[in-house]
Amino acid sequence: MKKQREEEIKHLNQLGEWIRLNREFDIIDLFSELHPADIADLIDNLGEQEKIRLFSLLEVEKASDVIPELSDASREQILEDISDKKLAEIIDEMDSDDAADVIAELPEDQARAVLDGIEPEESRDLKKLLKYEEDTAGGIMQSELVKVPYDSTINNALNAVVQASDEMEVYNVFVVDRDNTLVGAIPLQKLITSKRHSPAIDAIDKTIPSVQTNIDQEEVARMFEKYDLLSLPVVDVGNHLLGRITIDDIVDVMEEESSEDIYRIAGLHENDNVFNEPMESIKKRLPWLYLNLLTALASVLVIGFFENTIQIVIAIAAFMPVVAALGGNAGNQTLILIVRGLALGEVTFENAKKAFYKQIVVGIVNGLALGIVIGVIAYLWKGMPVLGVILGLAMIINVFVGTLIGTLVPLSLKWLNADPALGSNIFVTAFTDAFGYLSFLGLATIFLKLLI
Amino acid sequence: MKKQREEEIKHLNQLGEWIRLNREFDIIDLFSELHPADIADLIDNLGEQEKIRLFSLLEVEKASDVIPELSDASREQILEDISDKKLAEIIDEMDSDDAADVIAELPEDQARAVLDGIEPEESRDLKKLLKYEEDTAGGIMQSELVKVPYDSTINNALNAVVQASDEMEVYNVFVVDRDNTLVGAIPLQKLITSKRHSPAIDAIDKTIPSVQTNIDQEEVARMFEKYDLLSLPVVDVGNHLLGRITIDDIVDVMEEESSEDIYRIAGLHENDNVFNEPMESIKKRLPWLYLNLLTALASVLVIGFFENTIQIVIAIAAFMPVVAALGGNAGNQTLILIVRGLALGEVTFENAKKAFYKQIVVGIVNGLALGIVIGVIAYLWKGMPVLGVILGLAMIINVFVGTLIGTLVPLSLKWLNADPALGSNIFVTAFTDAFGYLSFLGLATIFLKLLI
Repeated sequence: MKKQREEEIKHLNQLGEWIRLNREFDIIDLFSELHPADIADLIDNLGEQEKIRLFSLLEVEKASDVIPELSDASREQILEDISDKKLAEIIDEMDSDDAADVIAELPEDQARAVLDGIEPEESRDLKKLLKYEEDTAGGIMQSELVKVPYDSTINNALNAVVQASDEMEVYNVFVVDRDNTLVGAIPLQKLITSKRHSPAIDAIDKTIPSVQTNIDQEEVARMFEKYDLLSLPVVDVGNHLLGRITIDDIVDVMEEESSEDIYRIAGLHENDNVFNEPMESIKKRLPWLYLNLLTALASVLVIGFFENTIQIVIAIAAFMPVVAALGGNAGNQTLILIVRGLALGEVTFENAKKAFYKQIVVGIVNGLALGIVIGVIAYLWKGMPVLGVILGLAMIINVFVGTLIGTLVPLSLKWLNADPALGSNIFVTAFTDAFGYLSFLGLATIFLKLLI
Repeated sequence: MKKQREEEIKHLNQLGEWIRLNREFDIIDLFSELHPADIADLIDNLGEQEKIRLFSLLEVEKASDVIPELSDASREQILEDISDKKLAEIIDEMDSDDAADVIAELPEDQARAVLDGIEPEESRDLKKLLKYEEDTAGGIMQSELVKVPYDSTINNALNAVVQASDEMEVYNVFVVDRDNTLVGAIPLQKLITSKRHSPAIDAIDKTIPSVQTNIDQEEVARMFEKYDLLSLPVVDVGNHLLGRITIDDIVDVMEEESSEDIYRIAGLHENDNVFNEPMESIKKRLPWLYLNLLTALASVLVIGFFENTIQIVIAIAAFMPVVAALGGNAGNQTLILIVRGLALGEVTFENAKKAFYKQIVVGIVNGLALGIVIGVIAYLWKGMPVLGVILGLAMIINVFVGTLIGTLVPLSLKWLNADPALGSNIFVTAFTDAFGYLSFLGLATIFLKLLI
């Protein structure tokens, strides 16, 4: 891998020189040897003008392989510049799922011009694909697939693979009934090992399921993972074969979904990125921070209510944040486990109660363990046994409450049909902050009244 | 998918009844129809005694397919109970990578007994696999693969696939030189579409790379994603073919790695789970919370230092947490982008400076936007213009510092060869808390001195 990285840097320096010297033929030569993903990486690392120029040097077929591998930013810049005619030629060569993704990103009139410019059959296919929601089985499927009638032989199926091979990667041959109803799928390995004149239908792998178009892509990814699939047929409600989803797209879905989870917990937009233009990032993050500001004002209210108590024992002010911070972190730990468990399908409403009870025990024990330690520290440090007792008690309460809230916030969001990760960290810490101050200052006020 | 879930619940109820009625033959019948992953799901949902009993009803071959699909807890319970002889029989049937994973989980004497009980050749293979680090290409590869000499024909390669098909899933046929040096890989589709008597070597797909055993599994997953691979040959330093990694294992690696990232940011152990026994979870989380307690004491020190200032203007105590919380959340947003970018290979030391500058701009603008709003709120609420100014300034400083620290903490951890996610949220919030109090109370003290 070190070697690969070094090679990339070497290529990049080389390219820079050739661009300066206008040695286009050398560039075309280099590109002809490289994998589309590597060309995309090289282009991603260039300035905007150079990107467009280098992309224009690619042959149509190579260009169609490079586009899906480009970063979002590069693709946007290149698509803005390209002519409708050239783009239509490139789209014609692309897999339908990637083509639909590109068209979905275009401004409406450019999209219409491109759809009019490509082959009518492909245009019809694409328009159908564009109707499905982006995050569903329909939204990620492609219409290119190999299918044979149910009365075919293995030999027919093998021939169908040979015929299709210029156009697509084949993982399975699908067997359909007379009206295009899905009967089953035959893996390539099974085609190779079956007798050539035996019925194709006997070679069907019964463990390959199918999905309907409206199934969420996260659910689809889980099926690939559970059943070790390479490709999955997509059908309509009448079980008619519409398309297929392939493992390479699922790998992308998995990455997208897990980024989304991490991002949403922290109140980040799923398209945010460290290399985004600052103004774009700011627009995406600031709303969450303002929400956070609003929730933080709850803490101001709570503390303001107890100003008298703080005035009497000023040491209280110093220890307040400890109760809030620990409650927040304990809650965050549970929160993340629940969000991840929901995303992986391990946590469901049926077994949520079991998880809830276990987390409650964790909350109580962790609360005790932290409460006793901070109580002793505060006593030894400030020499006030009462401060130690109050602080310890408040800590026990708030760590327990944090764990409770960390369980309930994502489950409630899920129950409300919202994304369980969505800004959940902000809600949890807002609650543990406010409740931490309330329990600590409340206890302090009560003890003060008792002592005075 | 609804249907699938309902079916699972139906099966589960059915199973429960049959277990009560001792109708073992019905259970065996049901199992023979189900996918190993579905059997594993059913077993995962049972009590410990029932798990062990049901597992014992599985034939050896089915059992070998079910074991890798079980949850960690179920597998542990079943492995504890099973005899060494039965386990050796099952291991004999498993893919070598899964077998090595199971053996690595066993107590030492049981592992030795099992390794002595299986076929000598397989035992030798497994012992070799067990020497590789768990998270490397060597640790996830399997030794089962199909290879042919470099002077073979396509026909030879097809025959090799047929011969191997009882034993394994085949994705590629590898071509090796006389001393087992890797020459290349041929995808099944290419085998089908090539002329039967042409040289195998002409059908090699040059875009399929290879990896050495010591490459990190995250890096391997990135290669699968980039080059859309189904299987990847693993070689030693001399380019001798040792094994292969298949896409289904990579799907598991991706899930594992993204869970790990989310977990580590929050100070969670990678094996923690909402259904773990509470004592286990507590043992894993408490060390991080104690670390958090320690870092929170920094805030206590800072605030303690400014007790006089708070005593004079008590309203300061109420607004303190807002500065700390917003700095923490702004820092956390940047932190998560950097951690994720590092994990996906988008952020490197070479381009980190570019990311750093962009994040600084984001920090400054977000700080200004939040500082002005909170300043105005504080002024209108408490009627003290000075409080508004101090609060606004402190917010600007702390949101900026949070963004800075959110960039630097993961990059520094990476630079120290540690996991950039490891407890990074705890470090960032500890810093933004302490620094938030310092800037706010420090400014307040200076202004007070100027005014008095």
